[in-house]
Amino acid sequence: MSDLPSFVHITEVGPREGFQFEPPSIQTKDKIRLIDALSETGVPEIECASFANRKVVPQMADALDIAAGITRRSGVVYGSMWLNAKGFLQALDSGLYTPALTFGSASDSFLARNNNTTPDQQIDRQRKLRALYSEHGLGSGPLYLFTAFGCNYEGVIPVEKALHRLSELVAVCEEAGAPPANITLCDTIGAAGPSDVRALVSAVRDRWEYPVALHLHDTRELGIANAMAGLELGVARFDASVGGLGGCPFAGHKSAAGNVATEELALLCDRLGIETGIDIPALTRAAKLAADIVGHPLTSKLALAGVFNRSPEA
Amino acid sequence: MSDLPSFVHITEVGPREGFQFEPPSIQTKDKIRLIDALSETGVPEIECASFANRKVVPQMADALDIAAGITRRSGVVYGSMWLNAKGFLQALDSGLYTPALTFGSASDSFLARNNNTTPDQQIDRQRKLRALYSEHGLGSGPLYLFTAFGCNYEGVIPVEKALHRLSELVAVCEEAGAPPANITLCDTIGAAGPSDVRALVSAVRDRWEYPVALHLHDTRELGIANAMAGLELGVARFDASVGGLGGCPFAGHKSAAGNVATEELALLCDRLGIETGIDIPALTRAAKLAADIVGHPLTSKLALAGVFNRSPEA
Repeated sequence: MSDLPSFVHITEVGPREGFQFEPPSIQTKDKIRLIDALSETGVPEIECASFANRKVVPQMADALDIAAGITRRSGVVYGSMWLNAKGFLQALDSGLYTPALTFGSASDSFLARNNNTTPDQQIDRQRKLRALYSEHGLGSGPLYLFTAFGCNYEGVIPVEKALHRLSELVAVCEEAGAPPANITLCDTIGAAGPSDVRALVSAVRDRWEYPVALHLHDTRELGIANAMAGLELGVARFDASVGGLGGCPFAGHKSAAGNVATEELALLCDRLGIETGIDIPALTRAAKLAADIVGHPLTSKLALAGVFNRSPEA
Repeated sequence: MSDLPSFVHITEVGPREGFQFEPPSIQTKDKIRLIDALSETGVPEIECASFANRKVVPQMADALDIAAGITRRSGVVYGSMWLNAKGFLQALDSGLYTPALTFGSASDSFLARNNNTTPDQQIDRQRKLRALYSEHGLGSGPLYLFTAFGCNYEGVIPVEKALHRLSELVAVCEEAGAPPANITLCDTIGAAGPSDVRALVSAVRDRWEYPVALHLHDTRELGIANAMAGLELGVARFDASVGGLGGCPFAGHKSAAGNVATEELALLCDRLGIETGIDIPALTRAAKLAADIVGHPLTSKLALAGVFNRSPEA
């Protein structure tokens, strides 16, 4: 009935994607404190910061300070994100993990309105970025497809359209002799349902042999059910955000939920018999720390209710 | 791969289970206003109130006034709940729908601590209640099993224990010549994961031919994934609460989430191609009304983010 993986790799993206959504007043030392706490929970990879124009994303102006301030624990990968060559070069300087990120948006309207970019310009930029990666000796890296399932401007993205955009991005990687390490399908605004996840994951797999990963948002509460649909197809790599830290600037409501919460995704895996290496109670404590740092409740229900004690008398 | 039903019946339990968790100061006219709003959303059945000792449950002291005040819309079933003979007789007087409810707890400790009752006393009371139903001409009704998956005192409830308690309750109904109309498995404290739902639903079906229904709580965010596990086994009857109204007095935290939110469950069904008869945008508006009435945000992410517009340019 299903093809559950035995181990799932969850990348914690809260410090990058979550803090980016909060006011710039969050202090660097608090961001570092959260990353250090996350390091103790068994999450194998943490996206610590993004390297962006500090005028556009002032929340990430302290990315280099974060990279310099965290305590690096052996066995944990400390990653970062960028959207252009300048950001990549800063990331290299930071000493954070810099896989060769290729990315694009399935929605043309999203691209036009949020990045003032045409699809052809997008591919061209990715080709240049990929060449820069090769100059710096980077081989294969992940390929991210944003708005893979839908966007607020275009509505539903048909599978064929997502595949078309992916084929252009895959070509950028393959032509550089660095085929994608994985294809990460992003439900940027929480548009997908489980059937959509099944349809797109299956279509991508039918076309390519690269592993598929999922970056799901829980904007409309289907995130965990969508994750389950992915798990049942054997998807073994996910992004998630501690406590559900962060929101969705594109959902049309300031309070809209953001990424699926890491501890809730880890709980789903646990209850399906899948290993993640994550200490769920420790991660719920980190979620509480994250809520303290941002000064408002986060969306994680598990962090509020606490872990169910399966054997209270044991 | 799955056995999805084509139609799912969702009973809206927010006005009963939700308001029971709020302070008694919520005004009767506001409760009536919410029920009337819910009547316009396509939900086929609404639990309006419970008939309980007003000293123990002061929130429901106005149950008769609610029943008298609502505007009954044709095609909507207006139901109620009770836990003893006195409550049942009041419910009869109220004119609300009174199916023959049989119920029990799978957890002995939960029963002892919350109802000061032994398992044998519980069965005996159900037998007397069932006899009273027969005196009043009621035939088959639903059978509710509380804490079917777990409780805070005993932890996980093994499938065998749940089946044992169910077999006693089923016998009460069958011996009265009124076999259960359905068996509703309640995850009272949000203890279950999808595998647990599959295991217990399957075990109940292996043993009896009565339809299985699910009353799921979203205490730890697995509610919608658990619902999906039930839907994939063909479960076609669920309880849910508008906006996620209500909480969980047993979860150990005042802010813990309660029932799965009706509009989110309806969205899951919709995205899986299952009809519910529910107008989801109308129900999200009712969820906002519910939040206004209780004066604090509810847990529904869909109600906050709004429905995804699948064809914005259409």
